[in-house]
Amino acid sequence: MLAKEEEHITNISYDSVIFGFNGKQLKILVLEYHNTGMFALPGGFVKKKESVDDAAKRGVRERTGLDKIHLEQFYTFGAPDRIDTEPVYNIARGLGEKINKDHWLLDRFISVGYYALLDYNKVKLTPDQFCDSINWYAIDELPKLMMDHKQIVDKALEALRANLERKLSSMNLLPEKFTMKELQTVYEVILDKELRRTTFQRKMLGLGILKRHEKLFTGAANKAPYLYSFDKNLVQSN
Amino acid sequence: MLAKEEEHITNISYDSVIFGFNGKQLKILVLEYHNTGMFALPGGFVKKKESVDDAAKRGVRERTGLDKIHLEQFYTFGAPDRIDTEPVYNIARGLGEKINKDHWLLDRFISVGYYALLDYNKVKLTPDQFCDSINWYAIDELPKLMMDHKQIVDKALEALRANLERKLSSMNLLPEKFTMKELQTVYEVILDKELRRTTFQRKMLGLGILKRHEKLFTGAANKAPYLYSFDKNLVQSN
Repeated sequence: MLAKEEEHITNISYDSVIFGFNGKQLKILVLEYHNTGMFALPGGFVKKKESVDDAAKRGVRERTGLDKIHLEQFYTFGAPDRIDTEPVYNIARGLGEKINKDHWLLDRFISVGYYALLDYNKVKLTPDQFCDSINWYAIDELPKLMMDHKQIVDKALEALRANLERKLSSMNLLPEKFTMKELQTVYEVILDKELRRTTFQRKMLGLGILKRHEKLFTGAANKAPYLYSFDKNLVQSN
Repeated sequence: MLAKEEEHITNISYDSVIFGFNGKQLKILVLEYHNTGMFALPGGFVKKKESVDDAAKRGVRERTGLDKIHLEQFYTFGAPDRIDTEPVYNIARGLGEKINKDHWLLDRFISVGYYALLDYNKVKLTPDQFCDSINWYAIDELPKLMMDHKQIVDKALEALRANLERKLSSMNLLPEKFTMKELQTVYEVILDKELRRTTFQRKMLGLGILKRHEKLFTGAANKAPYLYSFDKNLVQSN
């Protein structure tokens, strides 16, 4: 059943970009609507007395089964022409519902964007009643997304890439202690470019957010690399 | 005259935090409403067919006289209890207007926050019809602001402080070429803390966004410091 006008604030929605990472590849969670062939980000509407942040959390939980994930707001999409009514008619048709042309879902929506970064091997997905499927897609192999959802993905990627050190230190994607090389691999995958080892190391150490620990002894002791961890206090105050 | 419901999207507003900086002090632009003793950030509403970004630009221009400033969206405030109706009644009273308790301005508003950073010596302010005055206040001497505007200021300050290098390179607050000491002063004022010269220099050079130029010759040549500029390509790609 489509969301009801009397329970929600009109003209406001949220969309969420859930990034999944397994150390080697960056993916995004995409839903496919019933009988429409349409792909979309998990999104939804805000109840009358609900905060926008809570709506996004509830929505992601209901639509994907993901609970307790850290959603971060990154941008609000407010262009007047961002809504295309065709997908709304299609979704209604897919659900077997009829809607009139003054239906509230056909009006303009300002959408608050959220993103999360998690390890996609550690979560289980459950699609909701609207969707045939919910899947992880590699970032360079996304299906055609409805409305402006591709732009929302691009903007989320920009936000993720800016200040990656803050995000990584709070998101537990690396082991507690890691080598500079492991850290560099994470950066290279998420930034989608190769980095020079010396420049990367100088930048990371210059930021002053890493704590150096003992060396990682592997047997070949004279080449043992140092282990590092994020110093959470320093990341905060930096 | 109060904003009219039929011209605007309901439940959506914007608020803007205009930071002013003169190289030595960081200030914020605050309005005082007619006959109310109430202080507020410049804010307003979104017209039916206007983008939220355009509404914020128009609003800042109408309310403060500032034109062509670069506003950046930083956060959307969506708590259901962020609105206090008392200020709305006061503003209406200050304008000599009567409003009923189902007036659209008394309903819940989700506010999109924008900020700008400019040199306050280079701009001229013009308050609009709603305001007695519009003034720059030092960040640690703000008057009591209405509703959640103090929280909005705090969040804007957080956004300004994160990635300050990106903002400074695009906002022309420094001369084209500057010494490391001049750059450090800007950081110290905006971050509101003293920084160690060596750590600061190492961090800045580690980021790889500064281009080094000739030395600044002042007569005492053997102590001449290097001049730097932001390398805009590097700031973008970093």
